[in-house]
Amino acid sequence: MVNVAWGGRFQQGTGTADAFLAYSSSLAEDAVLIPYDVAGSIAHAEGLAVAGVLTTDECSTLVGGLRAVHEDLASGHATLLPEHEDVHMNVEALLKSKVGDVAGKLHTARSRNDQVALDTRLFARDALARLAAGLAALSEAFLSKAAAHAHVPMPGLTHLQPAQPITVGHWLHARAVQAARDANRALDAFAITNVSPLGAGALAGTSFPIQPEVPATRLGFDGAFANSLDAVGDRDFILDALHAANQSALHLAAFAEELVLYSGPSHGYVKLPAGYTTGSSIMPQKRNPDAAELIRGRTGRVTGAYMQVAMTTKALPLAYNRDLQEVKAPLLAGLVSAIDTVQIATAVVQGLEVDESACAKHLVHGFLEATEIADHLAKKGVPFREAHHVSGRLVALAESRGVPLSGLTWADFEAAHTAFSKDILDVLDARRVPAVKTSAGGTAPERVLEAVKAARAALESLATRQSHAAAKVATVPAILNPEVKPS
Amino acid sequence: MVNVAWGGRFQQGTGTADAFLAYSSSLAEDAVLIPYDVAGSIAHAEGLAVAGVLTTDECSTLVGGLRAVHEDLASGHATLLPEHEDVHMNVEALLKSKVGDVAGKLHTARSRNDQVALDTRLFARDALARLAAGLAALSEAFLSKAAAHAHVPMPGLTHLQPAQPITVGHWLHARAVQAARDANRALDAFAITNVSPLGAGALAGTSFPIQPEVPATRLGFDGAFANSLDAVGDRDFILDALHAANQSALHLAAFAEELVLYSGPSHGYVKLPAGYTTGSSIMPQKRNPDAAELIRGRTGRVTGAYMQVAMTTKALPLAYNRDLQEVKAPLLAGLVSAIDTVQIATAVVQGLEVDESACAKHLVHGFLEATEIADHLAKKGVPFREAHHVSGRLVALAESRGVPLSGLTWADFEAAHTAFSKDILDVLDARRVPAVKTSAGGTAPERVLEAVKAARAALESLATRQSHAAAKVATVPAILNPEVKPS
Amino acid sequence: MVNVAWGGRFQQGTGTADAFLAYSSSLAEDAVLIPYDVAGSIAHAEGLAVAGVLTTDECSTLVGGLRAVHEDLASGHATLLPEHEDVHMNVEALLKSKVGDVAGKLHTARSRNDQVALDTRLFARDALARLAAGLAALSEAFLSKAAAHAHVPMPGLTHLQPAQPITVGHWLHARAVQAARDANRALDAFAITNVSPLGAGALAGTSFPIQPEVPATRLGFDGAFANSLDAVGDRDFILDALHAANQSALHLAAFAEELVLYSGPSHGYVKLPAGYTTGSSIMPQKRNPDAAELIRGRTGRVTGAYMQVAMTTKALPLAYNRDLQEVKAPLLAGLVSAIDTVQIATAVVQGLEVDESACAKHLVHGFLEATEIADHLAKKGVPFREAHHVSGRLVALAESRGVPLSGLTWADFEAAHTAFSKDILDVLDARRVPAVKTSAGGTAPERVLEAVKAARAALESLATRQSHAAAKVATVPAILNPEVKPS
Amino acid sequence: MVNVAWGGRFQQGTGTADAFLAYSSSLAEDAVLIPYDVAGSIAHAEGLAVAGVLTTDECSTLVGGLRAVHEDLASGHATLLPEHEDVHMNVEALLKSKVGDVAGKLHTARSRNDQVALDTRLFARDALARLAAGLAALSEAFLSKAAAHAHVPMPGLTHLQPAQPITVGHWLHARAVQAARDANRALDAFAITNVSPLGAGALAGTSFPIQPEVPATRLGFDGAFANSLDAVGDRDFILDALHAANQSALHLAAFAEELVLYSGPSHGYVKLPAGYTTGSSIMPQKRNPDAAELIRGRTGRVTGAYMQVAMTTKALPLAYNRDLQEVKAPLLAGLVSAIDTVQIATAVVQGLEVDESACAKHLVHGFLEATEIADHLAKKGVPFREAHHVSGRLVALAESRGVPLSGLTWADFEAAHTAFSKDILDVLDARRVPAVKTSAGGTAPERVLEAVKAARAALESLATRQSHAAAKVATVPAILNPEVKPS
Repeated sequence: MVNVAWGGRFQQGTGTADAFLAYSSSLAEDAVLIPYDVAGSIAHAEGLAVAGVLTTDECSTLVGGLRAVHEDLASGHATLLPEHEDVHMNVEALLKSKVGDVAGKLHTARSRNDQVALDTRLFARDALARLAAGLAALSEAFLSKAAAHAHVPMPGLTHLQPAQPITVGHWLHARAVQAARDANRALDAFAITNVSPLGAGALAGTSFPIQPEVPATRLGFDGAFANSLDAVGDRDFILDALHAANQSALHLAAFAEELVLYSGPSHGYVKLPAGYTTGSSIMPQKRNPDAAELIRGRTGRVTGAYMQVAMTTKALPLAYNRDLQEVKAPLLAGLVSAIDTVQIATAVVQGLEVDESACAKHLVHGFLEATEIADHLAKKGVPFREAHHVSGRLVALAESRGVPLSGLTWADFEAAHTAFSKDILDVLDARRVPAVKTSAGGTAPERVLEAVKAARAALESLATRQSHAAAKVATVPAILNPEVKPS
Repeated sequence: MVNVAWGGRFQQGTGTADAFLAYSSSLAEDAVLIPYDVAGSIAHAEGLAVAGVLTTDECSTLVGGLRAVHEDLASGHATLLPEHEDVHMNVEALLKSKVGDVAGKLHTARSRNDQVALDTRLFARDALARLAAGLAALSEAFLSKAAAHAHVPMPGLTHLQPAQPITVGHWLHARAVQAARDANRALDAFAITNVSPLGAGALAGTSFPIQPEVPATRLGFDGAFANSLDAVGDRDFILDALHAANQSALHLAAFAEELVLYSGPSHGYVKLPAGYTTGSSIMPQKRNPDAAELIRGRTGRVTGAYMQVAMTTKALPLAYNRDLQEVKAPLLAGLVSAIDTVQIATAVVQGLEVDESACAKHLVHGFLEATEIADHLAKKGVPFREAHHVSGRLVALAESRGVPLSGLTWADFEAAHTAFSKDILDVLDARRVPAVKTSAGGTAPERVLEAVKAARAALESLATRQSHAAAKVATVPAILNPEVKPS
Repeated sequence: MVNVAWGGRFQQGTGTADAFLAYSSSLAEDAVLIPYDVAGSIAHAEGLAVAGVLTTDECSTLVGGLRAVHEDLASGHATLLPEHEDVHMNVEALLKSKVGDVAGKLHTARSRNDQVALDTRLFARDALARLAAGLAALSEAFLSKAAAHAHVPMPGLTHLQPAQPITVGHWLHARAVQAARDANRALDAFAITNVSPLGAGALAGTSFPIQPEVPATRLGFDGAFANSLDAVGDRDFILDALHAANQSALHLAAFAEELVLYSGPSHGYVKLPAGYTTGSSIMPQKRNPDAAELIRGRTGRVTGAYMQVAMTTKALPLAYNRDLQEVKAPLLAGLVSAIDTVQIATAVVQGLEVDESACAKHLVHGFLEATEIADHLAKKGVPFREAHHVSGRLVALAESRGVPLSGLTWADFEAAHTAFSKDILDVLDARRVPAVKTSAGGTAPERVLEAVKAARAALESLATRQSHAAAKVATVPAILNPEVKPS
Repeated sequence: MVNVAWGGRFQQGTGTADAFLAYSSSLAEDAVLIPYDVAGSIAHAEGLAVAGVLTTDECSTLVGGLRAVHEDLASGHATLLPEHEDVHMNVEALLKSKVGDVAGKLHTARSRNDQVALDTRLFARDALARLAAGLAALSEAFLSKAAAHAHVPMPGLTHLQPAQPITVGHWLHARAVQAARDANRALDAFAITNVSPLGAGALAGTSFPIQPEVPATRLGFDGAFANSLDAVGDRDFILDALHAANQSALHLAAFAEELVLYSGPSHGYVKLPAGYTTGSSIMPQKRNPDAAELIRGRTGRVTGAYMQVAMTTKALPLAYNRDLQEVKAPLLAGLVSAIDTVQIATAVVQGLEVDESACAKHLVHGFLEATEIADHLAKKGVPFREAHHVSGRLVALAESRGVPLSGLTWADFEAAHTAFSKDILDVLDARRVPAVKTSAGGTAPERVLEAVKAARAALESLATRQSHAAAKVATVPAILNPEVKPS
């Protein structure tokens, strides 16, 4: 009853074997590995045929049987059963029921140790390619909004306080370049991951005349392992994948924090798309920024997954240890969380509305032109520290009168320092300040538009890397169903 | 196809609302909260009646309806539906279908903010009570084995190298006292958790004349919140719960490491129960210590959960933020992992076999009597550092002759130092050394047996705390079904 | 040159022994342990005398010598030297230079394994007592401000958006109860820590007739170890200490986030004391909330220290392993960071100024009375969900007219629902709403003042626990210098 | 007195400003940044001159003054003073004392926000280049030992139990390829880090006509920032650096675990070099593997540093926040720990002695030839699962007779299965098994020697990347002292 929470777990009164079976099962994660496991077995069978270990007929039988097994599992006509322990033994059992004893030959020159390493790498590279693609799309979404709002001034913050005016385009471009960096990082992790462990056997290689490069090529790997102990015993690629996921999650958590702040009534610079907020039945004017809060909160899942893998793999000697089973779940949780988060963030960015008048309103009273006054003097040769002090005194003067800096008169400036020239009055409108920040990478609209263009050019190069990755990933569905063109 | 891995997630081509619905759903964790949610609602209804906000009839109708809703959900006649978002709204919808519009009165003087805090605390305290009970049972299992092997000598290690002889009982007693400490820690976390947040409303309390102590008492809490902002906005009890879980997981990871080492062919001191190892079809003499490896590996899940919660809650201002949804999953994962691990470890300890002859065999060749030789001299007044050097020279002598220390003769000792007396020869058998380590808490069999007795007495006091906790936890099933005596 | 960064480390051209000496040294942390190490040795010497292992004269010589050694180190007349490896060997070497060969007798029935465990526990309990005292003072600082501002209304937030009016006192009281909870947690960790490991020897106890309770009592411990392997091999008390530190750091990080937000120009509810902000020479009106940002940022150091200890101790078999050296640094870093942070936060709270008019200004335009309108109807028997909808429509009406809810007329309410009575107009001022939230723990000023009183009573009980801890901690200076009364 | 531990911190009785000064100081980390800070200022001055903001004379004066300041600091003639807060203000103050008011012009078109980002990146890339160089040297050390022991058989483990024979060379080659992968990862992080933030100003760029590419090129960066907000506000490169460090630390922790096990008396396969172990005065035959234990334990420092940075930077909005000060310490601690660990590990590997007879001894009694028996049958066409069972029965037979598999006779094999041929007797010596594992990446000596050759070729390509990095890093000392050729 109240045991609903616990009831699905170890039954009291059952034998210890059952309790341990439940404790040691990883079928939940293994279900995700099905297509990778079957495709890996097909490539292995073909490799055995090339090596002469299987006849062509045996190979055909096994490959056909494996495709049928996959179809059964994908369509729900078959499911993984706990009594067969893991995905590998389940597939073998289903295969045997389809093709008989020849199924027993599939495991020649192979071990579950290289098999699980293979499945995990195939999953991880798929996830990383998806993450990279998602990040590239997110980057483009940021760039598109950045270009559309390149000219819109808003307060730029340091210490969460208005410091200097920037443009909305500049802000969103910053997030775009981070997303592109994250996409590249995911593809770096892809490259480290995309090495086949198949053929490593239990730990030492094999005396069968197989060539690991054969299934590696068939499965779209960039190469095969250099050392069989490393191939079955190391999971550093998982930590690389989670690190890449973590960086993207952290960037989006920071962006989400900005959305929470900027969409609230105190700022109101942006409006989140309606489908990504939740209203309150009682306060209809209220739009809780739930999507932003969940994006911000979910980053903990990715960082936690990284920590979990570091803990679990710490100080494990070569080669395989059963502890390694425990890194499948955080790999899955961390990558899926990051991919989902990127997808939701992209939709939020695409639907983001900018309230130009709210941005403008907050530029009036922050004395955000103070730096420009100092720079004006510095350009006349006034030592920088002195220029700073003069500017500070003028801000204090304006504050004491309760006016913005534009409320000061030419007389005020003349009195403050002899080096002022009259064009100082032109910079006393925060909305016009961004236009003068024309150094490369700066906030001036023309710089932002140039930067958007450069970022899009960089996304083009990224697209080449992505295409490579996508082609590699597409080998798996092509192996499973050669007649269907992979989408 | 290959999309099996991803197919259950956001469908392409569906509206963004659907994608966000999937992203924001926590129904998987919420299913676990059902009994706590319904019991909380019953207590709230009763509290509203006491306050005069509901009539007795309205209260009866609601309570009866809620019990029926719980039965439907527990028996599978009803399930949580995504369109009702979370467990709270699902229960309310089901209640309305049973009792009509009066269901709408249940949410008076309440908010989902205090409701989810309530459910989470009820779950956490239940989990902590189970963890504590499991740890007490584990401690007793260790004590039982310790008592049975109090006289069996084995090598004691420092730096993973034989240092001095200890007894098997002494080793297992060490693990018993750790488990008891962990049980107490779990109950400390129980005490911090067992404070009711119900009545805090959205964040500020309410103007209805409710008394939060009423439902608090009904639900077995030790008291009600002192501040409503704290009640809905803080989750420190979750980190306490995960810290308690983490300590127990870390202790068991270290014990598991010992099992992996000691059950292997290099040592062979212990045999794990057959149901908790996996054989190899090809190497029948091999028993892979899978249970120990999984216990060791799963600790990462608990530590990762702790890190996840720290990340997710970092720098969240009061009161409720949607990020808090993200701490339910790690609470569940971390506690269930710890509870399961304790259960499996207990079974392993209960079935552990000690191989006395293997232990004895490893005592012969480690020169483990060296400290006793030094202590012998020190007792004669030889300065300790000098005594150490003499002992070292005798070890070197034995090593050069290829004999154990018992292979040295009285002449050797006489030549080494004049302070030796002939009873030195009595200590030159590592198997007999533990008997002389009679200081309190030391390894001598009599001390171990005393220590086991003392530890059992401590478990008695612990049992009192556990009974208190169990009684509190039992209020939930009693509320849900007053006719059934809670087990 | 550029090698300044690296130059203090391993010199090129020196022998490997030197490189390893630098790598393995922990003298930086050991310096902190000096008083604990010396006091522990004094208590050990006295224990040996009680056991008859040392004569009274030998004991006096050693104790006197140790006090002189401590004075030399405390005054800087002596320093720890790398060639003596660690604090223990340095103290012994200094002692020998003072009292000669009898110094060699001090290490009888002792090992560096129990000695370092002892020093670390003495340090940890001292740090925990300081942390608890700091947290109690912080709690009182919060309470004092809460009482002073119990009647000041301000917006209460959920999802970082105005939700309902609360009082400033209510907010600060929430932080006070958290600090008190953290102080109790630190004292719980103190209790677990305050168990003496002295007498455990290297791992197995000893054959000398010592009684571990004797030095334990002398050093202010609540008892001695139950198992010598556990005493030298376990560091769970360090993780407890860091968890307690982490919880306080997380609470203060969240409070700091509020200070950053509330002290900024968008809210302006509070002003940080001048000494804890940094101005900008160029924008004199700007006060960067540096103290709050550093408090928020430093929490990472404490959480990182927790993770470091979990990683380092993961799966270490009993008893001592050299890895344990690595937990001294994070213990020190984590506890000192938490203690410092609490001290700075206390000063910030004490100097915090509340801007009542800024708070009031933000109450006008948030429709924060909406919940009260719904509650008004619910009290008349209108079903809660219906009441909610009516309230929502009225908010929409006000919003469409561009007026606050107080801008609606009685006619508007009459038209909206027949159940309204005219006193509804009385609640249409957010500043007056807190006064009606009179449920226990709620935001009404009278409740806040009661809650402050209750919290102060709880601090009284806490003070008893603190006194106990302080008395225990004071034994160390008393041992080192019996003539000076410990402050 | 006992306050030695705490005495260096906030004094009681001093003003709050002092307490906060101590709390907010980062001078300890800043000292490391001196050369980077000064070189950055020189490049900035030169950039200002190119832009016409400074005259050639002003520039010369500043550059000369800065070099003199660096020399003073490097030689200890000047030190950083707390009253000047941080490294930047200290350098400016020292500069002013050397060159007078023109020093005030140096900060034109610059902010401490881009300056600290610059210093941190220069430090991080230096550390990463050192880490990569250290890892390449470590990899070569592994390869050298691997080649020397390519033919030495030893037990290969799974689940920490003997599974199949491997070669010592194969094991060490696995560690070599991991180190090379880690070196590449460090250089990937180098590439992400090596982008100049100088010219970003406080957050928005500047209206001075500077070109950020000019100082970027001068300082050896691969380019300048694309967005000034990103340049001053993001620290993802620090997490990349720490991730690279963490992976290397984790690989070495696992290797260290193997050393602890294999150097102990139960295995004895290897001997650590004498300078990296500590003996025991009382047990002269004992060599505690302290270096391995410290390597294993220190990994927690690196992982902890990663977690610290993730926590501290979580959800910080753009652009600069003071929290970012807190990431300097973990960057320093994590990278220095990793670099040191790699150095010590390299020396350990170089001095590692392999005990061939101990390896051989452990090959006799593990039935490690079982897989070969099954493979023998599989090659004859016997279905793999059947072959496995036959092999298992033979192992059981040998075990029951108390003999190794080589103790079975041809009659035993004939009786077990008709498919056996007499050459089965040739594989019944575990020492000869590695020779037949000739698949690529396998354990056969010829494969290992080929793999060593391939790994060395890969190190050659790595060397090209390293040279690039080293050349970039060398710009800093060259700027500081153009007359000395950087080594």
